[in-house]
Amino acid sequence: MTWRSAATAWSAPAYGSPFVMDLDRGRRYGTIADFRDFVRLAQSCPWMHHSGGVVCEPTDIPVSHRHLDMVAAHLTLSDRPFLGAVTAEKRAEDSIELARLAFAPGFLDTHCVIMGNVNVNSPLVWDGTMTGALRAYAAAGQGVVCVPFILGGAMGPVTNAGAIAQAHAETLAGCALAQLVRPGAPVVYGNFLSSMALRSGSPTFGTPEPALGSLVVGQLARRAGLPLRCSGSFTTSKLPDAQAMQESTVSMMAAVNCGANFVLHAAGFLDGLLSMSYEKFVLDCDFLGALHSYLGGIDTSDEALALDAFREVGPGSHFFGCAHTMRHYETAFWDSDLADNRNWESWDEDGGLDAATRANVRWMRLLAEYEVPPIDPGTAEAISDHVARRKAELPECWH
Amino acid sequence: MTWRSAATAWSAPAYGSPFVMDLDRGRRYGTIADFRDFVRLAQSCPWMHHSGGVVCEPTDIPVSHRHLDMVAAHLTLSDRPFLGAVTAEKRAEDSIELARLAFAPGFLDTHCVIMGNVNVNSPLVWDGTMTGALRAYAAAGQGVVCVPFILGGAMGPVTNAGAIAQAHAETLAGCALAQLVRPGAPVVYGNFLSSMALRSGSPTFGTPEPALGSLVVGQLARRAGLPLRCSGSFTTSKLPDAQAMQESTVSMMAAVNCGANFVLHAAGFLDGLLSMSYEKFVLDCDFLGALHSYLGGIDTSDEALALDAFREVGPGSHFFGCAHTMRHYETAFWDSDLADNRNWESWDEDGGLDAATRANVRWMRLLAEYEVPPIDPGTAEAISDHVARRKAELPECWH
Repeated sequence: MTWRSAATAWSAPAYGSPFVMDLDRGRRYGTIADFRDFVRLAQSCPWMHHSGGVVCEPTDIPVSHRHLDMVAAHLTLSDRPFLGAVTAEKRAEDSIELARLAFAPGFLDTHCVIMGNVNVNSPLVWDGTMTGALRAYAAAGQGVVCVPFILGGAMGPVTNAGAIAQAHAETLAGCALAQLVRPGAPVVYGNFLSSMALRSGSPTFGTPEPALGSLVVGQLARRAGLPLRCSGSFTTSKLPDAQAMQESTVSMMAAVNCGANFVLHAAGFLDGLLSMSYEKFVLDCDFLGALHSYLGGIDTSDEALALDAFREVGPGSHFFGCAHTMRHYETAFWDSDLADNRNWESWDEDGGLDAATRANVRWMRLLAEYEVPPIDPGTAEAISDHVARRKAELPECWH
Repeated sequence: MTWRSAATAWSAPAYGSPFVMDLDRGRRYGTIADFRDFVRLAQSCPWMHHSGGVVCEPTDIPVSHRHLDMVAAHLTLSDRPFLGAVTAEKRAEDSIELARLAFAPGFLDTHCVIMGNVNVNSPLVWDGTMTGALRAYAAAGQGVVCVPFILGGAMGPVTNAGAIAQAHAETLAGCALAQLVRPGAPVVYGNFLSSMALRSGSPTFGTPEPALGSLVVGQLARRAGLPLRCSGSFTTSKLPDAQAMQESTVSMMAAVNCGANFVLHAAGFLDGLLSMSYEKFVLDCDFLGALHSYLGGIDTSDEALALDAFREVGPGSHFFGCAHTMRHYETAFWDSDLADNRNWESWDEDGGLDAATRANVRWMRLLAEYEVPPIDPGTAEAISDHVARRKAELPECWH
């Protein structure tokens, strides 16, 4: 596993939606087939660094078996790191055991290869399920992301300062517990602030207050000396439309501007996390590419200052074919796969498609062109055997 | 005229589109009726601080008369400041004379009430038309916004550092000229960086490189001690869709994050500024409201830290009805007029409308509910007379 770019913010798909949706089939409950497709899409995106966790809820698999199929999908359809189960201590241990099969014996004793994303039961409660999972990951020397999920006005105060103070205390309590289990256990300072429509009680996402709060949270994480998981491509929109990308862009810019190191929910998030959208997924992925250019910073070398170009072109002329432009034009600007930058006439002749419709074409093509990353046949068999054995041991349970 | 909020970034509509579009009537050439409607819409938006300039090109009016009808529309349909003509020195003077009618005699000698937005003919040329307009505004003690418009690879180098250095030199040359005309003449440090799709030569907007460049431009403006005009709600999308709001949000966040004081093109911009969109206008205006909350910062008072709420609620409960929530819920969070935050079922039952369709309903309602701001009848008559007299003096010219 290597860094995909110089960027310091790792991105992962959205996590935990019961529904999936696309423009052709509408909204429906997620299945393991959808789950695998989202793992494949994440693997296809060069700007996605991590395979995520519950990329959608595979509701056609018994609850007691889901974690096995999900972890197996991440291990066999992607070569990127992923999040294991947290819904029970034994499921966390299953996840770690499966991950162990993909590495050399003893490797996990000295390397973090899997993380669990554990939530505080805000306000101010770490419950037995979450601390059980936390203990499993920490004991194995694997990563724990400690995340308060605070909708202001529900699980915390409506004011940013109060919610941030609460989140800080909750996060650090989880991180401290991990250190009690195993000193030096890798932990991530997690944060998920959101707001509410207080006339209706509906949660709202991609709003200005949590984006602003993230800037403070980034400073607190750095003060604690911990890597930060924060923000994502949030929205309450029910469609991959103007609202969806306006809200998602606000919250993803917040992630980048606050210095987040790990951004869960970076792609696919729709309808307040109730739906994982195929079209939104590729729209978000495209924007993650743009953010890589943004995080690339500004080159201030003599070459970038382009004095020779000014000498060659002079006043009133243009830079189209000058030597400096020819040296740099192929890499100078972010080149989107989804934005339509053509003139109106060309776009109109081509059907006048909106971004969501183009995204629909794109995710289908990405799935059609997807290639399974190479895996050692013995490893694949060991994973498959482990899943089968554990499924036989665990009674089917649907709740 | 008063500040509409504590925010330091003044917003104005997009400037200069030949086309207008809406979902019902499609794309068409702009008319003076469209122009007036956009002035009315800007006046209806509490988050818009400025009435803009050429909110669309009124192509049904002779070119030689357009500036008169445009300035009259700003003066009579809005009570906000606006930009006057810059296409000829005499038209700039006409704009100033019309503005003079709205204020007490002598007021303009000591107050800046109108600005002209003058463009560098990049690279490195200040032409006679633009410096003529600049001289007219500066001589009258009125404002000049000096703006290089640089598409990297065309009017400047493809590298950010080179384009920014060029823009800085060009802007300061214009500002210096204004000081030669009248020492102390009010000037604004203008900037408009953009990128290109270098395979096709098409300009691109709302891309990451100019957003990053804006952060540097903000520092340069502060170093020069000048107010900054920068960025806007840019996009190349031909529709008010996901692409449009993703790109626009990137560039508006850049404006806010770089410390822009005046943001032209803050609403309506579509298709690389070729179209002014009614739906995009109200979508952008709604986001400007969100940015006011963002710029409001974080209250760190004891009241905002909410210690009493934690004492009242305690661990594991909720904050819905606690005293702290009741004291703050009405103003705690930005309340969008366009985002749909309801649950999927309510949204679906209501027709499952996307944001652009909701925006279509909204701009029509805003126009229906628009109220002309009060104006002294004598002033209105003087403006009307002045326009009629100048139209009689100026031959109709259509190019």
